[in-house]
Amino acid sequence: MAAGEFEVIERYFTRRGAHRDDVLAGVGDDGALVAAPADATLVLALDTIVEGAHFPSGFDARFVGHRALAVNLSDLAAMGADPAWALLGLTLPSADEHWLSGFAAGLDTLARRHGIALIGGDTTRGPLTVTLTVAGTVPRGRALMREGARPGDDLWVSGTPGDAAAGLAILQGRLAAQGRARDALLARFQLPQPRVALGLALRGIATACIDVSDGLAADLAKLCAASGVGADVEGRELPLSAGLCSVAPPDTRLAYALRGGDDYELVFSASASDRGRIGALDAGVVLRRIGAVSEEQGVRIDGKPAGRDAVHGFDHFGGVAPGSR
Amino acid sequence: MAAGEFEVIERYFTRRGAHRDDVLAGVGDDGALVAAPADATLVLALDTIVEGAHFPSGFDARFVGHRALAVNLSDLAAMGADPAWALLGLTLPSADEHWLSGFAAGLDTLARRHGIALIGGDTTRGPLTVTLTVAGTVPRGRALMREGARPGDDLWVSGTPGDAAAGLAILQGRLAAQGRARDALLARFQLPQPRVALGLALRGIATACIDVSDGLAADLAKLCAASGVGADVEGRELPLSAGLCSVAPPDTRLAYALRGGDDYELVFSASASDRGRIGALDAGVVLRRIGAVSEEQGVRIDGKPAGRDAVHGFDHFGGVAPGSR
Repeated sequence: MAAGEFEVIERYFTRRGAHRDDVLAGVGDDGALVAAPADATLVLALDTIVEGAHFPSGFDARFVGHRALAVNLSDLAAMGADPAWALLGLTLPSADEHWLSGFAAGLDTLARRHGIALIGGDTTRGPLTVTLTVAGTVPRGRALMREGARPGDDLWVSGTPGDAAAGLAILQGRLAAQGRARDALLARFQLPQPRVALGLALRGIATACIDVSDGLAADLAKLCAASGVGADVEGRELPLSAGLCSVAPPDTRLAYALRGGDDYELVFSASASDRGRIGALDAGVVLRRIGAVSEEQGVRIDGKPAGRDAVHGFDHFGGVAPGSR
Repeated sequence: MAAGEFEVIERYFTRRGAHRDDVLAGVGDDGALVAAPADATLVLALDTIVEGAHFPSGFDARFVGHRALAVNLSDLAAMGADPAWALLGLTLPSADEHWLSGFAAGLDTLARRHGIALIGGDTTRGPLTVTLTVAGTVPRGRALMREGARPGDDLWVSGTPGDAAAGLAILQGRLAAQGRARDALLARFQLPQPRVALGLALRGIATACIDVSDGLAADLAKLCAASGVGADVEGRELPLSAGLCSVAPPDTRLAYALRGGDDYELVFSASASDRGRIGALDAGVVLRRIGAVSEEQGVRIDGKPAGRDAVHGFDHFGGVAPGSR
């Protein structure tokens, strides 16, 4: 970056996100200083999004800023952590003020909503790539992990997985849609909502938890592998949105729900004795029981092994090939 | 990344760096879990290095891994923090196992040397870009900041700034060198040593501190701006290495020392009454008193204002143009 450009950029990222009393020094020194709460465990996560791989070229800057934070907040949600601080690594081809303003607004709005302060980062010149590190806190011993699912546990999922992949397909012209269904599905891809409140509510309830970034089947397979168990999912219990059902041909809906990535819902296991507690949760999203944890390894849908494609996840831009997030 | 590639990559970054008892869960879940020490302040920093901007294309993978961590450890050093944990965001064009192995080794060696554990991260496909977040700890109220320099304070610098820029010039064929001088200067660019021990030793001594990444004059200007003071540097006191003197023409040596970036030395202010304590420090690097803090704003070299180029820093690849790190 030339000097002038750099100063322009710094302006966009000073005092962004929520104000927090535990931030002793934010953007402006070699590092940020924060006061960690006593007796809490810190949760740290880092995710990168790359233009053309995790979002389309020319994607609205506001959506890019939102997504960069949302995918990271989703990791905190999956751990049952309370969001606290974020650091931004922004690599961009040039300092376009209009773009920067949109990006910062998208990031800022979501950060404030979740009480997270932007405390530092680095801006460099190069192909558009955004890395965020987020830190949160969780009381000692109360974090949700991928391991911990036990045979006999129920399996649950939040929201309506598959919508984000349908939204992307609409954006790319692979799926035709109009009106409210189109708007709803596009929004699910453009502005994914990390399930932070749900993660907090599941402390002490979920025996294992993961967020759905690569696709429900793929992420469930990771949870099962970490827990040393398997999963039996009932296809008819998968929650399909009205929007998805109105735009996706019947024979593709299950594939969207199982293999579509980018939803940032939570999938979790819990004791059958906790059905009442889970039913009574009010975390801003519908929860659906979709199956059960079994001793037999692997993920099965209606008794049939989920295919390799499903297990390896969603290619964010192909829709079906093995993916990586 | 295709699934197979991704699994290959994950292998390289599991259990890297030092083993630390405060890491409750490292790579492998949605986030890492660490126990923050009671009564300490956390220091968090994030830096990105981009191929072709912060290191040359084709730079040895081991040096890239080393540099990605070194530039971040240098931020912790400048804050007087004790390194603890790191998260890696690695964007790379393909999963070349030879490259990954070298990169991981470079990162691992430096991490172990400084007691830092690699606890998480993300690998994505794209143009080679490496972002690291590092976290360290410092006793409450003992962090070194850029602000705090007072008129009358001494100004000090560690090591021999300018060497890294000369090393890069040699690498790019802009400067001719042979034998030991060549090796020494190249090493200063290839394997910069963050001054972590010095940063720790300066707690309670330095009134302000910053690391030299953009060039001594540029980084000193930032320290002065944050402290609301100016600086008078005596050119004859600038420590020039024997290597630099043997390869750089006399009229360029001062420019290397003042404007050369990538040294990752520390420049700091301290009370004149602490000269004895500073002289007695044993932090593995020579310290030199190069001038004094003044009330008059700006950085002056032998009474003359440091030019805009110097103040705005080193272009890592041009040597003299305004830079950004």
